[in-house]
Amino acid sequence: MQRYKIAIDTKGSDKGARTIIKGASIALSQNEDLELLLVGDKDEIENEARELNMPLDRLEILDAKDVITNYDSPSFAIFEKQDSSLVKALEATSVRDDIKGLLCAGSTGALMAGSMRYLSGKNRVRPSLAAVLPSENGELTCLLDTGATIDCGASTLLHFAKIGTAFMKRMYGIESPRVGLLSNGAERTKGNKIVKEAHELLEAEKELNFIGNVEGSNALSGICDVLVCDGFAGNQVLKVTEGTATRIIKDIVRYAKRTGSKEIMELVGHLMSVYDISSLGGGIVLGIEKPVIKAHGCCDEKAIVNTTKMLLNMAKNIAVYDKRNNKI
Amino acid sequence: MQRYKIAIDTKGSDKGARTIIKGASIALSQNEDLELLLVGDKDEIENEARELNMPLDRLEILDAKDVITNYDSPSFAIFEKQDSSLVKALEATSVRDDIKGLLCAGSTGALMAGSMRYLSGKNRVRPSLAAVLPSENGELTCLLDTGATIDCGASTLLHFAKIGTAFMKRMYGIESPRVGLLSNGAERTKGNKIVKEAHELLEAEKELNFIGNVEGSNALSGICDVLVCDGFAGNQVLKVTEGTATRIIKDIVRYAKRTGSKEIMELVGHLMSVYDISSLGGGIVLGIEKPVIKAHGCCDEKAIVNTTKMLLNMAKNIAVYDKRNNKI
Repeated sequence: MQRYKIAIDTKGSDKGARTIIKGASIALSQNEDLELLLVGDKDEIENEARELNMPLDRLEILDAKDVITNYDSPSFAIFEKQDSSLVKALEATSVRDDIKGLLCAGSTGALMAGSMRYLSGKNRVRPSLAAVLPSENGELTCLLDTGATIDCGASTLLHFAKIGTAFMKRMYGIESPRVGLLSNGAERTKGNKIVKEAHELLEAEKELNFIGNVEGSNALSGICDVLVCDGFAGNQVLKVTEGTATRIIKDIVRYAKRTGSKEIMELVGHLMSVYDISSLGGGIVLGIEKPVIKAHGCCDEKAIVNTTKMLLNMAKNIAVYDKRNNKI
Repeated sequence: MQRYKIAIDTKGSDKGARTIIKGASIALSQNEDLELLLVGDKDEIENEARELNMPLDRLEILDAKDVITNYDSPSFAIFEKQDSSLVKALEATSVRDDIKGLLCAGSTGALMAGSMRYLSGKNRVRPSLAAVLPSENGELTCLLDTGATIDCGASTLLHFAKIGTAFMKRMYGIESPRVGLLSNGAERTKGNKIVKEAHELLEAEKELNFIGNVEGSNALSGICDVLVCDGFAGNQVLKVTEGTATRIIKDIVRYAKRTGSKEIMELVGHLMSVYDISSLGGGIVLGIEKPVIKAHGCCDEKAIVNTTKMLLNMAKNIAVYDKRNNKI
């Protein structure tokens, strides 16, 4: 059986290393072809591994005493904190062929800066933080950027369209992913200056299956496989969706309590399983050489299991980087 | 009894003049202190008025044969189509003291350009299209801009904060409206270039009750009374909210059909009444001398009744322009 090794940064998350290691342990038990490199405090990881009875033949530990926090300046910390778990994990992922991907629940900014430093290859193009979201028709939509690159030029949006297309092709076997450009109207004349410029660039790029502008109301309707926008707008799409879903679900719970309806409480369970964005496996760093996922800072064990499984699938599908063609 | 006269442009909407006139007729019957100036095809309005038995002592008709459509260039049409219902309605609202407000369901662009030409006073500052939305805690949030000014500088965002504040004070009696700035994170360091600049301007303006950055997930949580953003982002907030609510409600309907639950179908009715953004009365043009509302192009009679009532309230509250202080 071919095995795939994934690196996991155990530090920097809100709930502490224990939660990450527990999630890693469950992922190992559920996936026989998975091997892990856990990066962090060696003693702590060894203790947990013993307690959790983790399979030592599929577990490697890399000691790192330091941590990059959300209070550090990302680009500074990536250069200065050489003994941090994130820098050590990135370094290992970069130089070791046997490591197929990296999972981190710490600072997003540092992960993005570090991904660019260690994993962007010769191109040194800015990576993008993408989210793969279930759309209304049951298919998946890759939304990028979701908040890593806030100010984008039109050529960056074109770049995002390309890396999103490549990812949806390799990861989900979509032959010709439909690319939409988020705008304030479906007509081609709609958009801010940069979106209008990007519209022309996307249209001129014959290798892309560009379907035109997509309105916010259709962002997750399934109208496109890749939805391109700058990180500011992408963040709004994610958070407004989350905020609205949470609000409606709370409203239904209140309604159910008022009416005492058991059927409606069951409906709430259904809705929470469908619209819980935080369980979806975090953001995917696209535009780099290896699969990297940023899990939410407050992620629980289940989220670690899901994201690790996703990384495993990405590794199997060579979803992010195709060495044969030497292109992203 | 003091009466208030509102002008209504009967042309340019998707459903035709008949729907607008019917709505106007219902509004007249429901509000004894309301008078109307209906602008459009005189014969058509007269026929409808007779058929609907409208009170002729509270109805004035202004003949206008031409119409500005969504296919016209807004700024061009406002200057060229002098016999259009919109230009005639704007002109009348501008020069006649007895007309207290204007309702239009036609081209948004032309209405904004026309509002600036006819109703912006000496300042000739760009008006903003605002929406007053029910927030999670039951209060109202004034979101601006919602799509009229797509590319905004930081000083324009500051201007929006001021006119939104003035409106929420006068219209709803909120003493010191809390102003939020839409961003990709609550921290003051978050935002694109313009949002960061605007943050500093807003903070320096001591007359505003600026509470800082607000994330998309809190856009309609009731955390602020005025939420400021450019028209591109505001359009996303509106449409992503609408898209998400529609999607969840459709999902619940499917679930109810599957389970055959009557209780859940009743819940759907409740949700549709709460989350139907299209019934909320359209966009309010702020930053001009008189109350102007843009109803949705596809609005029905009920929406016309609601928006007319809103204009009547705005006129009573001198919600938009305070002549005594000669300031917006």
